[in-house]
Formats: sequence, structure tokens, C-alpha cells
Amino acid sequence: MLTRLPALVDVHVHLREPGATHKEDWASGTAAALAGGITTVLAMPNTLPTINSVETLAAGLKQAAGKAHCDYGQYIGGAVGNAATAAAVAPLAAGLKLYLDQTYGDLKLDDMLDWLPHFAAWPQDWPLCVHAESKTMAAAILLAALHDRPVHICHVSLAEEIALIRAAKQAGLKVTCEVCPQHLFLCEDDILALGAGRAEVRPRLASKADREALWANLDVVDCFATDHAPHTLQEKDSATPPPGYPGLETMLPLLLNAASEGRLTLDDITARLHSNPRRIFRLPEQPETYVEVDLDSRYEIRAAEQHTRCGWTPFEGWQVNGRVVRVTLRGQTAYEEGRLLAAPGSGRPIRH
Amino acid sequence: MLTRLPALVDVHVHLREPGATHKEDWASGTAAALAGGITTVLAMPNTLPTINSVETLAAGLKQAAGKAHCDYGQYIGGAVGNAATAAAVAPLAAGLKLYLDQTYGDLKLDDMLDWLPHFAAWPQDWPLCVHAESKTMAAAILLAALHDRPVHICHVSLAEEIALIRAAKQAGLKVTCEVCPQHLFLCEDDILALGAGRAEVRPRLASKADREALWANLDVVDCFATDHAPHTLQEKDSATPPPGYPGLETMLPLLLNAASEGRLTLDDITARLHSNPRRIFRLPEQPETYVEVDLDSRYEIRAAEQHTRCGWTPFEGWQVNGRVVRVTLRGQTAYEEGRLLAAPGSGRPIRH
Repeated sequence: MLTRLPALVDVHVHLREPGATHKEDWASGTAAALAGGITTVLAMPNTLPTINSVETLAAGLKQAAGKAHCDYGQYIGGAVGNAATAAAVAPLAAGLKLYLDQTYGDLKLDDMLDWLPHFAAWPQDWPLCVHAESKTMAAAILLAALHDRPVHICHVSLAEEIALIRAAKQAGLKVTCEVCPQHLFLCEDDILALGAGRAEVRPRLASKADREALWANLDVVDCFATDHAPHTLQEKDSATPPPGYPGLETMLPLLLNAASEGRLTLDDITARLHSNPRRIFRLPEQPETYVEVDLDSRYEIRAAEQHTRCGWTPFEGWQVNGRVVRVTLRGQTAYEEGRLLAAPGSGRPIRH
Repeated sequence: MLTRLPALVDVHVHLREPGATHKEDWASGTAAALAGGITTVLAMPNTLPTINSVETLAAGLKQAAGKAHCDYGQYIGGAVGNAATAAAVAPLAAGLKLYLDQTYGDLKLDDMLDWLPHFAAWPQDWPLCVHAESKTMAAAILLAALHDRPVHICHVSLAEEIALIRAAKQAGLKVTCEVCPQHLFLCEDDILALGAGRAEVRPRLASKADREALWANLDVVDCFATDHAPHTLQEKDSATPPPGYPGLETMLPLLLNAASEGRLTLDDITARLHSNPRRIFRLPEQPETYVEVDLDSRYEIRAAEQHTRCGWTPFEGWQVNGRVVRVTLRGQTAYEEGRLLAAPGSGRPIRH
């Protein structure tokens, strides 16, 4: 028997187009999304070139329009000096992304003096997301509070982070956050088995205590998101492995498997992949878009069966209970039993 | 003609007792204070052993009582697991000091999970001071805000820090701060002339733009403080130079000199060395304690004439307008024209 879930959103993916389409592009990345039971992806701006202007945003959205198999949004990146530009095109962007800690790409804003114009100029009710770990995360929350605006914390990975987010929420601050599967299901104890290069990811795999703190504080986690960050195996196994894991095809099965183990409920999953992302990111209702899963189908995760172009997964060989069987996009079957049915370009933009 | 200033307080000194009295002790440090026109010093807890318990605080205060030439207070240091202990002895402590960034000694609290108990347990109306730079400073301000309590930021050195403090004050947060002479009068351009070892200090000497930002934002600077951190010349010129400068004998002359140049007023100095420290640190009025200075006396700063045990100053050879002539402590002349008149033990504790 199949279980029907509503439209599921991954608010944090890297699709590598433009600039690194040997790793992924709008076509392969959105195919991976559908295969993973995700109907909308919000793509990060640290591409080559970075998406940080009217022109690069328009070009990125045009590339997506021609190739995307599922619905999509595109973030604009905050840079030194582009706060007014970014704010002007906000209605077309999924949100503003500020890179405030070490990451992949060159969008990092080190000096808080360079954060301030973005917190001031970006529309107050529009999504503002930060890569900000530990004290930097606390600093970002303070800046949001000083500007009386919401802030969304990407990929929370540490016990201290989730504790502070809880305290901030209790104090009434407008903080939301996401947690990624790698920080729920892996920890630093897994680095040896993964191999040092493949294990590279930002935020890093943390301690077992950090991992357990995320589970213990699921009630303050608003979204699950993959931070799908494909790099080829050749790159990951090189002397300078870039950080990041693919995740679009494994997040929902891993979460369904955790549900089968009683670690969370289907409602917990739906809240964090549908209702909360829709509210936080101001996404439209899509009643004719839904995902059907078989909760009793056990299978082994295999990179060879994935649609992502990167060719590997940190969860290779994991046995999971819970399979994506069919995805329906606006009334049309877009994916079914391993077959991609939606044509390139059948995905639609969430902003227009 | 002499100008009379009220009782002047340095809220941030390291007197190295117990544990490193070859650098300084309560006698030499408080002699240096009087020679510098300072009548009360608040001593930091990163001694050897650190002052972080009922016993070490009592021992420190006892050592001070026998030797101090000027009035004094002693901070207690926040450590992992001593939040309740510290709070219990708060009435006897100048305040709680949390080391949240790299510093001299082993009191650093890395994990924000270890900050939280201190922000929760320390009496809400009692001074809580943090060594916290950049994003860490912002994090400390957030934690204070979440606990609806004041926080005092030690040795602000960066443009981003003072900008954020301004924004926090404008938003109504209970933030106060201090700036040290080295960050007002020196910058990274001076490192070569000072020599790398002698120039070592935390926070580091910053850029000229940072230095100028402190001057441009003096209106949000609540206190001047030395962070008097004596190390011997042998230590400073070694392969592993410890961070820190002496400052007790040079702060007031440097500020008076700046006043003579029109960079600030005597009222600005009095507010930041008397009225504001007294309010923030809840110090008693001392009408019979005052400092007399000769604003027209020009002289050269020379380590050889100092009372500090460390034997050097980063301001060696500087010409200043403004000399401390006489210091009166509770009606008794304690210092006059280079001569120390107050006996050891004539200083009194600010808490009892």
C-alpha cells in the first residue's frame, strides 16, 4: 500500500550550473530531486560565476527554465557592495544567502560591517538564509534581532547551535533552522570508513553528542534540507577534496527509515519538508503535486542507481525501509518506479 | 596650575599575583596605578592558579589587602562547571569575567553550551565582562539579550565591533564597552617598530581604519581601561612572547595629551574613567579621593621611571602633554611628584 505525502521541498541544494556542470546541472539535479521524492528545490548561488546580480540571477533562472524536471527557486548571494542590487531583485529570488563561515566558493563575508547592509536592505519579510556556525550563527541571530527580521540558519550541526536556537525561539526571536541528513545520520566516528576526502563536508561531521543533540531537539528544527553538494568521486578522492555530499536521492528514504524505527513520525517529516518550508520560504500551495511512498519496501542505497551526476553517496550500501514510488507534479506523473517521466523544462519557478 | 579629576578607575588590569609575581604583584601594580593617576583597579582572574572558586577568590583578596597601595576589586573567572559557585560569591567579586576568545591563561570557554550556565546563574544586576572579539562578541551580546541582562565588552578593537555595539545600544540592549589606549594610539603599522614579540597583544593591534573607527565612535565607548598586562622584556623578546602590554602609568597621560590635541575633552575622560565605571561596576562614591594633573607639563614616557615590575612600555619615548602630579586617597596624599606615599595595605576593597 502506498502512502501519499504532499509536495516536498528541499530548501538547500547546489546544482552546479553555471560553471561546474560536470558535477551536476539543472537537468540531472532536478531528476535526482524527483527520484528522491522532492518536488521543489531551492538552489544556492555559489556557482561559477556566482549568482549575485540582476544579470546572473536572470541567466540562472533561464538555464533552469529550459532544463528543470521539478519546480525550482534560485537564491541570490550576498556580496560586498551588492545589498541594494540584491534587494531590488528579491521578488525573483528564493531568498538571500549570506556565507558567513568557511564554505565552497568565494562568497564569504568575513567582516560584520559587510553583513549590516544586507540585514538592513533585504526586504524584511523575505527569506534570508545564513551559512553561519557556532559563534558566527549567534552573531547572525543578533543582527537579525537588531533589525527585527527573520533569519533562517542553514545546516545546524552542533549541540551548542541547537541549544542557542531553542533559547532564541523561546525569547521570541524570529529564527528558523534546517538540519541535514548527514548531521542526523553520520558523525565524526564515520570519517575513517568514509575516507577523509569523501567525508569532507561543511559544516563538518560533528561528534556523536552533537548528532544526538539534534535528535533530542527536533522540536526546534523547522526544516530538513539536503545541502545537496555534488562533487565527482575523482574530486573527492583527490589531494584537495572539495567539501560536500550529494543528498537529494537519499534524504527522504533515510527519514522514512528513521520513522520506521520510531525515531520520528511521518508528520514530523511532512512538517519539515512541506508545511514549514512553505511558510518560511513563502511558497505556493500545490494540491496537485504529491509524493507516493511505500513504507514497507526495503532496499539498499546504491550510487549506481542515482540520477545525480556525481556518481557516489556517503550512504552507499545502507539498508532503508521506505521507497519513493511515484511523484506527481501538477497532476502529471513526473517520476515512477525508477523512471523519470517529466520532460526537461516541465519544472516551474516558484517566483515569477 | 593643577586640574583636579575625581577618583579614576581602571576596570581591567592583570596584576599577576598569585603565580607570576616576577612580572607584577599587588604592591607594584597598585603603585603603578597611583603613579598613573588611577585610584581603583579591578584585577582579572587569569592568575596562577586562576581565581575561580571561593577559596582562590578569598586568597586573592587577602593578598591584595596586605599589599595594595590603591583601592581594588578582584574578578572571578567563569570556568566549565563553576557557574553556581561563582554566583554564590558574586557580592565579593568585582564581576564575572568570561574568556570567550583566545587569551593568556587557560580560562577560555569554547563551547557556547558552557557560556549558558554563567549567563543564567550570575546575578542579573552584577557586572559580567567578556573577552569576546568579532563574531564572538556578537554571540556574547546575543546571550546577554536572551537573558535580559547587561554585558560589558572588554577591549573593543575593531570597526565591526564598535559598529555592532552602536547598533545594539540603539536597539536598547544593555551593552557597555571599554577601549584600551593601545587600540586608540597604536595600530598594526606600529608592529615593525615595536618588534614582533613586544607588539603581541590580545586583541591584536588592528588596522588604521579600525583605530580611527574607535575615535569616530567614542560616544558609544563607556570606559577607557588599560588591560594592563605586564610581562618582562625577557619574556616579550623570547621565542614565545606572551601577549600583553603594561598600561597603568601611561593611559591617563596619553589621554590628557589627546585632550591637549583636541581629540577629546577632559569631560570625555572623566566620564570614561570615573562616572561610567562607577555606574557600570556599582562602585561607591569617593569624594575624598581625587587626582591632580598638570595639563601643561610636557614630558617623555620612559620605562625606567615606571613602578610596574615589567620594565618596558610600548610608548617608550613618546612625548606627552599632561602629567599626574598628586593623587589623594580618602583624604591622604598617596602619590606626589614621582614619590609613592601610600603604604602597602592602604588600599581598600571595593566589595566587602
